[in-house]
Amino acid sequence: MSLIIIGTVAFDAIETPFGKTDKIVGGAATYASLAASYFYNKVKIVAVVGDDFHKEDIDAFTEHGIDTEGLQIKEGEKSFFWSGKYHNDMNSRDTLATELNVLADFDPIIPENYQDCEYLMLGNLTPIVQRTVIERLKNRPKLIVLDTMNFWMDIMMDDLLETLKLVDVLTINDEEARQLSGEYSLVKAAKKILTMGPKYLIIKKGEHGALLFHEDKIFSAPALPLAEVFDPTGAGDTFAGGFIGYMAKVGTINFNNMKNAIIFGSALASFCVEKFGTEKILNLTEEEVADRIQEFVKLSAFSIEA
Amino acid sequence: MSLIIIGTVAFDAIETPFGKTDKIVGGAATYASLAASYFYNKVKIVAVVGDDFHKEDIDAFTEHGIDTEGLQIKEGEKSFFWSGKYHNDMNSRDTLATELNVLADFDPIIPENYQDCEYLMLGNLTPIVQRTVIERLKNRPKLIVLDTMNFWMDIMMDDLLETLKLVDVLTINDEEARQLSGEYSLVKAAKKILTMGPKYLIIKKGEHGALLFHEDKIFSAPALPLAEVFDPTGAGDTFAGGFIGYMAKVGTINFNNMKNAIIFGSALASFCVEKFGTEKILNLTEEEVADRIQEFVKLSAFSIEA
Repeated sequence: MSLIIIGTVAFDAIETPFGKTDKIVGGAATYASLAASYFYNKVKIVAVVGDDFHKEDIDAFTEHGIDTEGLQIKEGEKSFFWSGKYHNDMNSRDTLATELNVLADFDPIIPENYQDCEYLMLGNLTPIVQRTVIERLKNRPKLIVLDTMNFWMDIMMDDLLETLKLVDVLTINDEEARQLSGEYSLVKAAKKILTMGPKYLIIKKGEHGALLFHEDKIFSAPALPLAEVFDPTGAGDTFAGGFIGYMAKVGTINFNNMKNAIIFGSALASFCVEKFGTEKILNLTEEEVADRIQEFVKLSAFSIEA
Repeated sequence: MSLIIIGTVAFDAIETPFGKTDKIVGGAATYASLAASYFYNKVKIVAVVGDDFHKEDIDAFTEHGIDTEGLQIKEGEKSFFWSGKYHNDMNSRDTLATELNVLADFDPIIPENYQDCEYLMLGNLTPIVQRTVIERLKNRPKLIVLDTMNFWMDIMMDDLLETLKLVDVLTINDEEARQLSGEYSLVKAAKKILTMGPKYLIIKKGEHGALLFHEDKIFSAPALPLAEVFDPTGAGDTFAGGFIGYMAKVGTINFNNMKNAIIFGSALASFCVEKFGTEKILNLTEEEVADRIQEFVKLSAFSIEA
């Protein structure tokens, strides 16, 4: 039994109003697997890097108990590289460089040891690669979560719709939900999207929290208001990783557990943005995570007598 | 003991993607007093209208038990008129006409019968008129709530800052909180604003809910996701009226009661947007309100074991 996370493992160079980094390790699978590792100890990644990715970069995964057998290292090639600059509001950014490199022809090979997969997180990648992973698993996982973005809706909507039919949970932001459904109201958008395959829809609203839709039920999760957002990179992936890591831990798929999973994912994401890149989520203590969860509880609790 | 609500009583002509209205009764004091009347039965308004405001328009207030002795009717003059058109996203609008009319030289006269005021809602008006009302009350109310907008920050910031020193609760939206404080982070903005006079700050975020700040505490209230927002006009005033109406009902000023008051205000606002103008909030049953409150409870409840 394991949790497989597929996505990018990459180098990022990030500039925010608070400073800038050289190339640091990033990528959806990096953030998501680190986050998931706080709740579940059988996390395995499927990704591809070049030979510029060094042993010490891989150590960060193994120190968190993350299985890297599915991390392909392509000799003579370079890792995916992204560079971006955030504006003062931290909500918008300019992409300065995107070098696909090894990602251009990524073939997601699933090691035999990974065939015990019960939980599958399909990080943001082409919908075709995401679908290939599902097809290569001998048994259908108990829970498949898919993250995607507007980019794939723009250029590969048909492929995305095909892949969506195969998943249980979709995580997208509010604009993407509107684009995917053609509906402005998120309630109407969710209703449509829940006919496309996913039985659960999570709409990520960044500083405004997240919404979970399932059948006729809605859960609204708060975001923790922060004095300083240092670097938003990876927050969405950290959220998704925390979410599925918690689901893998509790093992029962239902609406109530998903509500909690969203709070755990949000808590991890709130740490992620406090420092550059993965710095903060590399070294959290159990106590720090537990305290942050309690902050979420306090933040949204109220008690009205019926 | 009473709750005084001061603000505009006006005519609005509204166009939304769903249709348009002729001149209908609107204005901040109208929405706020109707909302407050669901929770408290000693609501009194201070406002001014022209002689185009007819007896049947006033009946809507009296039917809700709202005291209109403080509603001045200026013979030979016209009521404040606003006309606007909402865009398809319902979050932005164009103002088509603003005719101040009687509002241009509004002198807020407080009837002697109003001097028992314990709760005061200062709806969006010039900060000078808002301050005048406070000065004309012989005893300082137990709770003063002030609503304002960016317009007054643009043209009368000094007067606004003077008035702010006198109030307990400020309600503004997120952009206004940023403008007033000069801080982008709402946590930092709140910290600054809470040194300006108000001990409580409510940041209204529309479809994203509301935040309450007090000392080092934060409460995040959800908004009810709606399939259709028919007309957003008056939602903020309805929220504020529901908020102070509930506070007047419970009578004890503290953070926990304010959390509930925000939920009650949000519930009333969620009704307001379902029809044009005041139509929906004119005729709510106790059961409808109670059911809506339970929807808010379900929407945000989760239970994580420590």
